[in-house]
Parts: sequence; structure tokens; C-alpha cells
Amino acid sequence: MAKGITFHTRKWVRPEDLNANGTLFGGSLLRWIDEEAAIYSIIQLGNKHVVTKFMSEINFIASAREGDLIEMGLTAIDFGRTSITLRAEVRNIFTQESILTIEKLVFVNMGEDGKPEPHGYDHITYTRDRIPLEITKALI
Amino acid sequence: MAKGITFHTRKWVRPEDLNANGTLFGGSLLRWIDEEAAIYSIIQLGNKHVVTKFMSEINFIASAREGDLIEMGLTAIDFGRTSITLRAEVRNIFTQESILTIEKLVFVNMGEDGKPEPHGYDHITYTRDRIPLEITKALI
Amino acid sequence: MAKGITFHTRKWVRPEDLNANGTLFGGSLLRWIDEEAAIYSIIQLGNKHVVTKFMSEINFIASAREGDLIEMGLTAIDFGRTSITLRAEVRNIFTQESILTIEKLVFVNMGEDGKPEPHGYDHITYTRDRIPLEITKALI
Amino acid sequence: MAKGITFHTRKWVRPEDLNANGTLFGGSLLRWIDEEAAIYSIIQLGNKHVVTKFMSEINFIASAREGDLIEMGLTAIDFGRTSITLRAEVRNIFTQESILTIEKLVFVNMGEDGKPEPHGYDHITYTRDRIPLEITKALI
Amino acid sequence: MAKGITFHTRKWVRPEDLNANGTLFGGSLLRWIDEEAAIYSIIQLGNKHVVTKFMSEINFIASAREGDLIEMGLTAIDFGRTSITLRAEVRNIFTQESILTIEKLVFVNMGEDGKPEPHGYDHITYTRDRIPLEITKALI
Amino acid sequence: MAKGITFHTRKWVRPEDLNANGTLFGGSLLRWIDEEAAIYSIIQLGNKHVVTKFMSEINFIASAREGDLIEMGLTAIDFGRTSITLRAEVRNIFTQESILTIEKLVFVNMGEDGKPEPHGYDHITYTRDRIPLEITKALI
Repeated sequence: MAKGITFHTRKWVRPEDLNANGTLFGGSLLRWIDEEAAIYSIIQLGNKHVVTKFMSEINFIASAREGDLIEMGLTAIDFGRTSITLRAEVRNIFTQESILTIEKLVFVNMGEDGKPEPHGYDHITYTRDRIPLEITKALI
Repeated sequence: MAKGITFHTRKWVRPEDLNANGTLFGGSLLRWIDEEAAIYSIIQLGNKHVVTKFMSEINFIASAREGDLIEMGLTAIDFGRTSITLRAEVRNIFTQESILTIEKLVFVNMGEDGKPEPHGYDHITYTRDRIPLEITKALI
Repeated sequence: MAKGITFHTRKWVRPEDLNANGTLFGGSLLRWIDEEAAIYSIIQLGNKHVVTKFMSEINFIASAREGDLIEMGLTAIDFGRTSITLRAEVRNIFTQESILTIEKLVFVNMGEDGKPEPHGYDHITYTRDRIPLEITKALI
Repeated sequence: MAKGITFHTRKWVRPEDLNANGTLFGGSLLRWIDEEAAIYSIIQLGNKHVVTKFMSEINFIASAREGDLIEMGLTAIDFGRTSITLRAEVRNIFTQESILTIEKLVFVNMGEDGKPEPHGYDHITYTRDRIPLEITKALI
Repeated sequence: MAKGITFHTRKWVRPEDLNANGTLFGGSLLRWIDEEAAIYSIIQLGNKHVVTKFMSEINFIASAREGDLIEMGLTAIDFGRTSITLRAEVRNIFTQESILTIEKLVFVNMGEDGKPEPHGYDHITYTRDRIPLEITKALI
Repeated sequence: MAKGITFHTRKWVRPEDLNANGTLFGGSLLRWIDEEAAIYSIIQLGNKHVVTKFMSEINFIASAREGDLIEMGLTAIDFGRTSITLRAEVRNIFTQESILTIEKLVFVNMGEDGKPEPHGYDHITYTRDRIPLEITKALI
């Protein structure tokens, strides 16, 4: 299983992301990391129908202020039969300081009937070779 | 320490809260509960300057769909020297089904210097008798 | 008919809710109270299909600033054949000061054909015993 | 005092503006008209510091659906010593059907001390000749 | 072809529209002008199904700050077989200073099959006499 | 000067990003790319105070639908005395199809006085070694 986290999505902390203390609103941060983790899971499982099932404990290590740049990193640490488990880290782009870490985020692979479905994968892909069926069809 | 969770804020799940599966976006849910927990902490600690420090594991037990009504519940389960620990539950208003539970959310009481500061409380208040100093001053 | 208003949903005034004066944007306030009133009506009428029909005059008694906590209160004051009339108040959580009052908000109960439909209720329920038909069906 | 309402701001009803019935969310509509009325008042009073004080009863005459185009119209119907009273109408661009009317919206002219202040105007201007003092200063 | 730009939609720059410099976020500005141009195109082509196809170069001539009032202006400068070309200007309401200009925005008229379709118009209408077919049907 | 575009930020197209055709709203797309380009510029120039000055013509090559994953790519193609010029591409993550390209986006490096200021760089950095002065100070 992969060790290295890869950082993709970046955010520029703007006034609308602040709480009443003038620091980054925890709720915005959780919203961003959940979206990024869903995208990561879709790419790994080749299925657009994934749902957040579980998050292990979340440490808000440091905060961020207006104008800070942050980036979100993820890596798959386990592939279950119908699920995928990720590790997440959010950090400050310049100082490399961790803002938040989550050891385990579990997403479930959903079938067309809205129930968990086996995905058939057991390792990380670094390309986009697991193309969702609905896209394959549309391309033919 | 109190057992009973009290439910206050309610949400009507609208199109803008959905993920691409047509179910409630996990990130929106986390954003809502973080805001509600911050409000609860401010009322208990009588200080508007509180920050999210930690969340224990989060179980997404069930989902919600467009048009569903949900409500958010909280109770304090521990008062530390500079912190407060809450338990949270989000549920469907009609079916009473749990959507999400978080056993521990820790908020820290911040001083004017931006550092943790003792708050002096050790039990839940059910009235609004812990009025932030800045409000007391403004009322005089 | 009930006298007492019950307060549920709470808001923490954040930067995105401010107008260019640095005070709470009237439009945000109206958006919040309309959503809360719709939820209240759905619970009373046991129907998710309700629409805002009328609001009596609105007094913006006081304002709110960034970081203020506010709460929204409602009570049903009349049940028509196809409608429900509510009274609303928004107030500051700590000072109990009224921010806005609306004597009458009328919501209409809509049928599946998109037209007003009798709802059959004539008094307030304090439990969630008026479960929308579509939920009852889903539970069977 | 002027009779004719002038329509300026237009909106294209998008998915994020819908309520759970698939029709335009009343709260969004109120938010839009409040912002438009504030802009109108600023132009008439030559002061950026205006606040919503009162709205007379609001009739939601018709609804709107996704993809509909609507426009917001206003006219001043009275100039008080420290206030201005407007009449508002929101209508469908193509069918000209009224969606909402408000007979009276009162905005108050605020001084630098945050208190109502006389504005000195008693009729509508159709040009932008009442330039806020802070802009005049910046232009010199 | 018409020379004069007509200005309709107005915006009051609020905290949520600012970038981390405290000036109007370029992205918000582009979002607003794209929506306004889509509305203009729908009115000219009598079809709700239009899509942005092209924008010529964009000059950000001046910025705007919190509390500024701005207005968006458009005019059609060319009618193609399946497209319409607009010129856009955003300016400060009081100082009349240009904030942004775009010489050409091209929108395409889409058919029910999701492909470009001839619209049959070759000049600007100043009334709302090109009513989309789906509205005409609904009115009968 | 670098050839290769690097793709960082990813988006999952959600209901709130759609226009009334059910396709990705052009305005949302422009908002996202502007934010991503600002972040790229800040990293290259080591200054948080950058503003969008110019965009060359924009081709909306393809659209995107709800549930699509897209990614935004940028590279610097020129360093001026007080500016930086970028090339941008937005594409579908799975099909690699281009959604939008912009040949030139110009950002200006602003001084503390709010005026353009020389930045002193002439080539791309692939690390985060150009740390804004205000961060360097805070770290000492």
C-alpha cells in the first residue's frame, strides 16, 4: 500500500471562509476535504457513486488566516471489498505546517440499486485508467 | 454531566446541499454540525472566541435526500480547564433515524491573545447566564 | 391556539452574512426565517410541499454584528383549510433583544397536482406525529 | 412622487435557488429584493450606509421555476427626514406576470456614528448625481 | 446593429465577494457577467437553452472595494446563424469608471437535441417579444 | 520557459454549479480558474498581493455535467517586470477532454501601497521557495 500522500486541490482562504474569530472556519475545512476525498475515491474505484461512510478522529493542529494558501493531500491506505480507506492531510502551502490530519476516511462503492457493491480493486492507480462505465459507454 | 442531547437547529435539505449522487453531501453535514457545536460552546463558555480542536470518529449512519428535514443535537459531556467536550447527533426529524453521530467534539476557549485560556465552568447551563464580557460591557 | 413561541434554529453571524455596513444583511435574515418557517409548517401539516404565500409587515427592530448569536422562533397562530399562519421572532441569544418580528407568515399546503389542498389540522402538534405520506410509505 | 417602477437587476433561476418543491425558494427572492432595494436607496440618498428598517406585507403572487428569468423593480414613493420608502415588484421577464409585490420598504440613512441622520432629499433622481461623500473625496 | 450598451443588473460588493487583498475577486466578476450575458442572450434569441461558447480578451481596468455599487451592461453586436455576439462592460455606478470590458462574448442557441440550432434573428429587440416556445405553450 | 502544464485543483460538478440547461455554468468555471491562477501566481511571485489584470480569449470547447470530475492546469509562460503571464487549461479527469483553454492570464504583483511593484523573478519555481515576506517574519 502507498506511503506517500499526493497533494492536489488548493484553496486561497477568502473572507467567506472565516469564522467569527477571523480564522478559517472548521466547517469549511471539513467540507473541502470531504469533496477532495470523494474525487480521489472516484478515480481509484472508477465509479462516480461513492458515499462517505466513516471518518476517524480529526486533529485541528493549526489554523489558517485570510489570504493563506492551503493544499489537500490524500492517499489510499486500504481497499476493502466494497470500500476504500484514505488518509488525509491539509497543510499550509508555504510553511508546510499541518493544519488537519485524518488517519482514516472510508468511502463506499455504491451500485445502481443504491447498495454497496464490490469494486474489484486492491491497489492504488496513479493514472486515470479506471474509467466509470457510464463514461466508457458515452465514448463508444 | 448531562445525558440528554438537546436538538435545536433544523435544516431542510435543498438542491445546493446534494452531492452528485443526489444524496446529502457529507461536507455540508460536517459544516452544519461544526457551526452548531461552536454556538453551543459559546453559550456554555460565555466567550465568542472558541475554536474547533478535535473530533472523534464520525459515523455516517444513514443519508438524507432532497426535501428531508434534519435536526442537530448536542450536549456537553466534559468541561476541561480551557476546553469543552461535546457529543453530537444529527437525525431525521420525522423518522428519528440517526444520520450521523460524533462521540467527542472538543472546542477550546481562546483568550484575547489568541491562546487557550481557562474558562472557569464545570457544568452545563440551560439558561443564557454566561454572557460574554464584550456583551456585558456594551449593555452598561 | 398556542401563545408561546418556540426557538429552534440558531445562527452564528459570519463574514458572509454581512452587508457593506458591517451589520447583518437584511436579505440573509429573511432567507433564514423563511426556511425555518417552511420547516415548521411541514412539521405541522405533515406535508413537504408547502409554499410561502404571504408575510405581514416586517420590523427590523435591531441589527446584529459579526460573531453575534441569534435564534429564530415560530408559533402557529391559525390553521386555515389549506393554509397555516405563523408568528415569527428573531432575537439575540444572549441579550434576548428582538432583531425582527413578523406577525403573520402564511404557508399553503400543496397537493401533488401543484394546487392548494386541505390539510385537515386545526391545532399545533408538539410531537412529530404528522408524518408525510411519502415517508410512511417508505417505512412500510 | 414617481409612479413608474424601473426594473434593473435580473436573475436566471438556477438549481441553487430552488426549494424542495422545485420552485423558487421564497428566501432567495427576499434576499435579492432586499439587496436591490438597498442599492436603489444608496443611489437616491447618496450614502452607502443605509439599513433596512421595515417592509410592509409581502404577497407571493406566483412562483418561478428553474430556468425562468425574473427582474426586480423599484421606485421611491416617499422621502422622510432620515428615511426613504420604496415600492417593489418582482416579475417574470417574458410573461410580465407579478411574482411578488411589496408596497412599502423603508430604508434608513445612517450617519458615521451609526445613528439615523437627515439626508436632505425630497424627490427621485434619475441620474447618479448624489455621490457619496467618501467617493467625492477620493476623486479629488 | 446597436451601439449603445444598456445597463441592467446591479451588485453591491459584499464581504463574500472579496479576494484576500480586500478588493473585488475577479472570479466573482466573471461569474456575474456570464450570468447577465446569458440572460441577455435568452431574451434576444427567445430560447432558454443558450451556452457560453467564447469570450474575447478581458481587461480588468479598475478594481472595486467593499460597499461599491457596480452595474453590468451588454449589447448585441452580431447575430450569427446559430449564435449571438455581445459586448460587455462593467462599471462603477457613481464614478462611471469602467471596471472590466469584453469586446466579444459568443453564446450559442441550442436545440432540444443539445446541438446548435438556427435562431432566425438578425437584429436586437428592445421588447420581450421573442418568447420561448415552452412559455408560449404553457400560456395557452 | 516551461512547456508542461501542471494540474492541481480538482472539482466535482455538483447541482449548485449547474446552469438552467443542466450543464456546468460558465461563470462557475471562470471563478474556479481565476482562483487557481491567483494561487499559482502567489507561489511563483512569493507575494500574496496579486490581482487579475488581463485574460486573453477564452474557448469553451466542451461542457461538463453533474457528477463530472474536472481539473485545472496552469503554467507560467512569461515573467514581466511587475507581472506574470500564465496559460490555463481545464479538462475532464477521465476523458482528458479539454473543457476550456486560456492562452494568457496576466496577474500583477502589488506593493503595500496598492501599486504594481517589481517582483524580481524570471523563471518558474517547482518548489515553494519564494516565501512571502510576511510569512518569513512570522516564522522568526
